[in-house]
Amino acid sequence: MTYDLVIHNGTIVTVNSKFEIIQSGFICITAGEIKRIEAEDPSRPLPDAIQTIDATGGIILPGLVNTHSHLPMTLFRGLADDIPLMKWLNEHIFPAERKHVHPGNVKSGAHLGCAEMLLSGTTTCCDGYFYEEKVAEAASEIGIRAVAGQGVIDFPAPGVENPAENVDHALGYIERWLERHPNIMPSVFCHTPYTCSDDTLKKAKEMALSKEVLFQIHVAETRQEIEQMQSERRMTPVKHLEQLGILDDNTLVVHGVWIDEQDIAILADHGTALSHNPSSNAKLAAGIAPVPKLIEAGVTVGIGTDSCASNNTLDLIREMNLCAKLHKATTLDPTVLDAPRVLKMATIEGARAIGLEKRIGSLEVGKAADVIIIDVDKPHLTPLYNPISHLVYAASGSDVRDVIVSGKVVVRNRILQTMCLDDIMYRVNEIAKAIR
Amino acid sequence: MTYDLVIHNGTIVTVNSKFEIIQSGFICITAGEIKRIEAEDPSRPLPDAIQTIDATGGIILPGLVNTHSHLPMTLFRGLADDIPLMKWLNEHIFPAERKHVHPGNVKSGAHLGCAEMLLSGTTTCCDGYFYEEKVAEAASEIGIRAVAGQGVIDFPAPGVENPAENVDHALGYIERWLERHPNIMPSVFCHTPYTCSDDTLKKAKEMALSKEVLFQIHVAETRQEIEQMQSERRMTPVKHLEQLGILDDNTLVVHGVWIDEQDIAILADHGTALSHNPSSNAKLAAGIAPVPKLIEAGVTVGIGTDSCASNNTLDLIREMNLCAKLHKATTLDPTVLDAPRVLKMATIEGARAIGLEKRIGSLEVGKAADVIIIDVDKPHLTPLYNPISHLVYAASGSDVRDVIVSGKVVVRNRILQTMCLDDIMYRVNEIAKAIR
Repeated sequence: MTYDLVIHNGTIVTVNSKFEIIQSGFICITAGEIKRIEAEDPSRPLPDAIQTIDATGGIILPGLVNTHSHLPMTLFRGLADDIPLMKWLNEHIFPAERKHVHPGNVKSGAHLGCAEMLLSGTTTCCDGYFYEEKVAEAASEIGIRAVAGQGVIDFPAPGVENPAENVDHALGYIERWLERHPNIMPSVFCHTPYTCSDDTLKKAKEMALSKEVLFQIHVAETRQEIEQMQSERRMTPVKHLEQLGILDDNTLVVHGVWIDEQDIAILADHGTALSHNPSSNAKLAAGIAPVPKLIEAGVTVGIGTDSCASNNTLDLIREMNLCAKLHKATTLDPTVLDAPRVLKMATIEGARAIGLEKRIGSLEVGKAADVIIIDVDKPHLTPLYNPISHLVYAASGSDVRDVIVSGKVVVRNRILQTMCLDDIMYRVNEIAKAIR
Repeated sequence: MTYDLVIHNGTIVTVNSKFEIIQSGFICITAGEIKRIEAEDPSRPLPDAIQTIDATGGIILPGLVNTHSHLPMTLFRGLADDIPLMKWLNEHIFPAERKHVHPGNVKSGAHLGCAEMLLSGTTTCCDGYFYEEKVAEAASEIGIRAVAGQGVIDFPAPGVENPAENVDHALGYIERWLERHPNIMPSVFCHTPYTCSDDTLKKAKEMALSKEVLFQIHVAETRQEIEQMQSERRMTPVKHLEQLGILDDNTLVVHGVWIDEQDIAILADHGTALSHNPSSNAKLAAGIAPVPKLIEAGVTVGIGTDSCASNNTLDLIREMNLCAKLHKATTLDPTVLDAPRVLKMATIEGARAIGLEKRIGSLEVGKAADVIIIDVDKPHLTPLYNPISHLVYAASGSDVRDVIVSGKVVVRNRILQTMCLDDIMYRVNEIAKAIR
């Protein structure tokens, strides 16, 4: 038989349940799915294929899963840094959003964010913003897989001037996108427990349950949030969400920097996953989420970049690097979050966190063919003793050579195949002139 | 007049004392020195030059200064990770060094390390290892500026079987290299206060003073080191070095993770600089040096990558990124180590830390022409509101396009000009086969 695509001549890091690594293997893909993964046998020819990609000794691994982004905020990359969070939000980010967030800009920013992610090895992202329909359109056009969450907040917001309509607005979007594109999963993103009323949170969760979509929410990002919640409700945000019935295995909590042992137990009990955003939490001086404890308690933890306004890149390989180092530095334990664990967080655990672990997150027969190839023929990746070490401690997004999503080659030799990158960057630069 | 080289059409980040940024400027270079830096005047032609480099809208800044490396250890990149420090040293690094550290391998590893540094924007490094003469040769051949410190330790070491000869051995090397190459500054590197006797430390410092070379030493890297020193001598390592007369403004202490307020005051009093190695200290779970306090006390702090065995790259731009984030995450202050401060640490403050601030570290008339150009025409550097933000929070070494050391173009369009990179990588890969 003839496959659509065969990728060969690389070290395959499967990230399957046995964490198998195949030295010099090949992968056969047809109709967007992985059909075979095997070690190459020099005495036998490669299977026939319409297209063959020679990984030339590189590392072949599942596409990375970015569990938290606000893609249109690429428009605000580096607009304001090194400023206290509330000042940053109130004097820089919120005013820029009020003035510049409209459907056209959202789509242009999302195109750039998607391009940056694909070019740095992320094949799936879990996003949330206003006008999320435009993000869904951008993602589907450029060929990235996305869980795209419409933002819900109890204030007048871009695209939803009347907060009373926020959940219904999200519902309309979700219904339009539920079966529209196989790689776009609509979702609802409630901003925080302190910017959404109890009624809004419950209504949004009920809606998410009825549509079987992911419910996302920022939780316990800063110490101030905990203090406010303790003073107003005498409980932690996680406990508050539990009491409202929000927490289950189709809810993703984002950040979780300030959570205690009891919060961790609650998340574990409900099967609720967490998106860890080490760069954003560090840069905004929010703190460091207790990831080793979360994992020990059995909570699924994925990695997220957060937005370009607080990171300032969407490079999940660099995020792995920071994640691996940050927790060692603060726990003083060099064995904490070792390289294989961090790679799992950025692939299969990230997929599990957003409910897609049966479809993506590892290279296995029957799964979607979301595959990336790392070029290791570089001075900073020489010599190569251990591919996992290089992925977590030495590589960066610019080492990603080829990217395949659902069997489609979307990046080849570092060139985006699906849209003109120069056009995308030109449009964002024009928007930035107005923002500046 | 005709200059040797004119670089134009970029945003010049001078890192001079006023931290001036010139939008669309040009730099004229002759005989390895900067002769003019000015804003471009569209009504006048550029000065005549033998060679002109168009930065095409990129960022032009001083070459970065890596204040701590062990270049030949690129041979051990990723050989062993996620292991407690003593086990890592005793079971992996020391055995590999005993077996594989000889002059040929040292030179090959140093070539690779130098190439990696140049290609990621570092034009000066401060190194220490055994057979440092081979590092000095490699650095001079490839065209990087280096302070190259011969290692001194009171154990049999590669190249110095008899520890009683270690300081004299270093002296011989220093005398051979003192006037040999304008860009290679020999130095002595005493390993630590617990692996060098008081006599060795004093003798080495006296020798360094007599030859006017930099004295380097690892100090207070781990908590265990402090406990050992407290138990044996009832004082901190910094206090111990002060009492031996080691600390002055031509001594560089490396790491300083476990130093207290009194230690900081001692360093400030003696004008002794510190090399901060955030990645290495984090990955080995040594901890986090109190950099904001050091800077507040007036101590000069540069940034170092440490070796590829503990980092695992030599990319100082990524090191800036980690440095900027790590201290915010742990102090919970988003204004700590802001982007301009971190850029200074990687340039002028690094130069000051190793005694070269009059020659390098900023773009100023009369200084050596060590210049790098960052290509910002990339999705992850779009849009550009603030070049300093991009350098610290969004760029990585692979965004460095051109590198000039002493007026000589050593990297052009990401291609190393002075040696064949493929040959360098081939040799290291051959050595790695034996190590593996």
